[in-house]
Amino acid sequence: MKSLTEYLWFNTKRHREFINITDSVEDVVQRSGIAEGFVLVSAMHITAGVYVNDAEAGLIADIEAWLEQLVPYRSDYKHHATGESNADAHLKSLLVHHEVIVPITNGKLDFGPWQQVYYAEFDGQRRKRVLIKAVGE
Amino acid sequence: MKSLTEYLWFNTKRHREFINITDSVEDVVQRSGIAEGFVLVSAMHITAGVYVNDAEAGLIADIEAWLEQLVPYRSDYKHHATGESNADAHLKSLLVHHEVIVPITNGKLDFGPWQQVYYAEFDGQRRKRVLIKAVGE
Amino acid sequence: MKSLTEYLWFNTKRHREFINITDSVEDVVQRSGIAEGFVLVSAMHITAGVYVNDAEAGLIADIEAWLEQLVPYRSDYKHHATGESNADAHLKSLLVHHEVIVPITNGKLDFGPWQQVYYAEFDGQRRKRVLIKAVGE
Repeated sequence: MKSLTEYLWFNTKRHREFINITDSVEDVVQRSGIAEGFVLVSAMHITAGVYVNDAEAGLIADIEAWLEQLVPYRSDYKHHATGESNADAHLKSLLVHHEVIVPITNGKLDFGPWQQVYYAEFDGQRRKRVLIKAVGE
Repeated sequence: MKSLTEYLWFNTKRHREFINITDSVEDVVQRSGIAEGFVLVSAMHITAGVYVNDAEAGLIADIEAWLEQLVPYRSDYKHHATGESNADAHLKSLLVHHEVIVPITNGKLDFGPWQQVYYAEFDGQRRKRVLIKAVGE
Repeated sequence: MKSLTEYLWFNTKRHREFINITDSVEDVVQRSGIAEGFVLVSAMHITAGVYVNDAEAGLIADIEAWLEQLVPYRSDYKHHATGESNADAHLKSLLVHHEVIVPITNGKLDFGPWQQVYYAEFDGQRRKRVLIKAVGE
């Protein structure tokens, strides 16, 4: 069994940002030398998400608007009694989910034609990490 | 380490459809010869979901109605500027999630009594694929 | 390849409950002797969720209120024609997702500073199980 673990750091300029990290995931898989296995892409913070979908700007705007509708930024969350103001970012992370598993077949990401891995930052402008871990043989 | 990767093809008659694929997943696991490991079931398209829940027709109707309520089919999504009309299917895929990992223990799906694997088609009537990949020993 | 599979049993006092199970997951990983791999934490019932987020009481109250808003407890779900009254718990399980994969690196859960594993019971007051399965080397 082989494994390779790497960490991507982000420090987004905007509070919310959607970043296509497919190339970074492919790069880890290639350097791992793994032909068959899984690569986990998992946010290490609880106010960010990782998902697989389309690299299309209109859709990304739709995703952002839809998340804001289902989980609006508001001041009256109970979490804010701690001094935080980012409860909506926690809930958006739950909704989108914080991780994906991508299959590795013949040494490559075994994706359909439009699948891309996205890092969804919901509370940015500070240093945050994503783990990429490939395991297989 | 052993692995086996197979692809299920669908071409649903209706635009939306919920298909129980538990038997196909079990079949791949059995033929893999894997006693302990994981099997990933992952949609290869970004307008479909894979989830684990109950094989009960009333519940499936509830799931469909609930998804339509939280992510309505509408014409005014920004994604539709590309000529597409399926932004709701992308968002439904995000909400339900596009994949599950099922544990393999003693050569079988290690499921509770009511757990079943479903393929949720949100934009059908064309050929689409799901990957089933078992990895273990 | 090594693997270790254990089952946690719950019988919550309240109908809904959020239980931090991070210590149990860490304990399985430690006893597995696995240095590099994945640990799957997966509810074996279809009316419960497993998620990774913050161990903060206000946020947990926010999560519960938000879930109730997006998936209200109602009597008129079609699933209830079977005699059940827990369709909302099924939908909450879909929304939160029923499982997470946690990376194992250097023999430990490879988590960011605030990540904790939670079992979310949406239809409790009876015996229910979560599977914890570590696979790696």
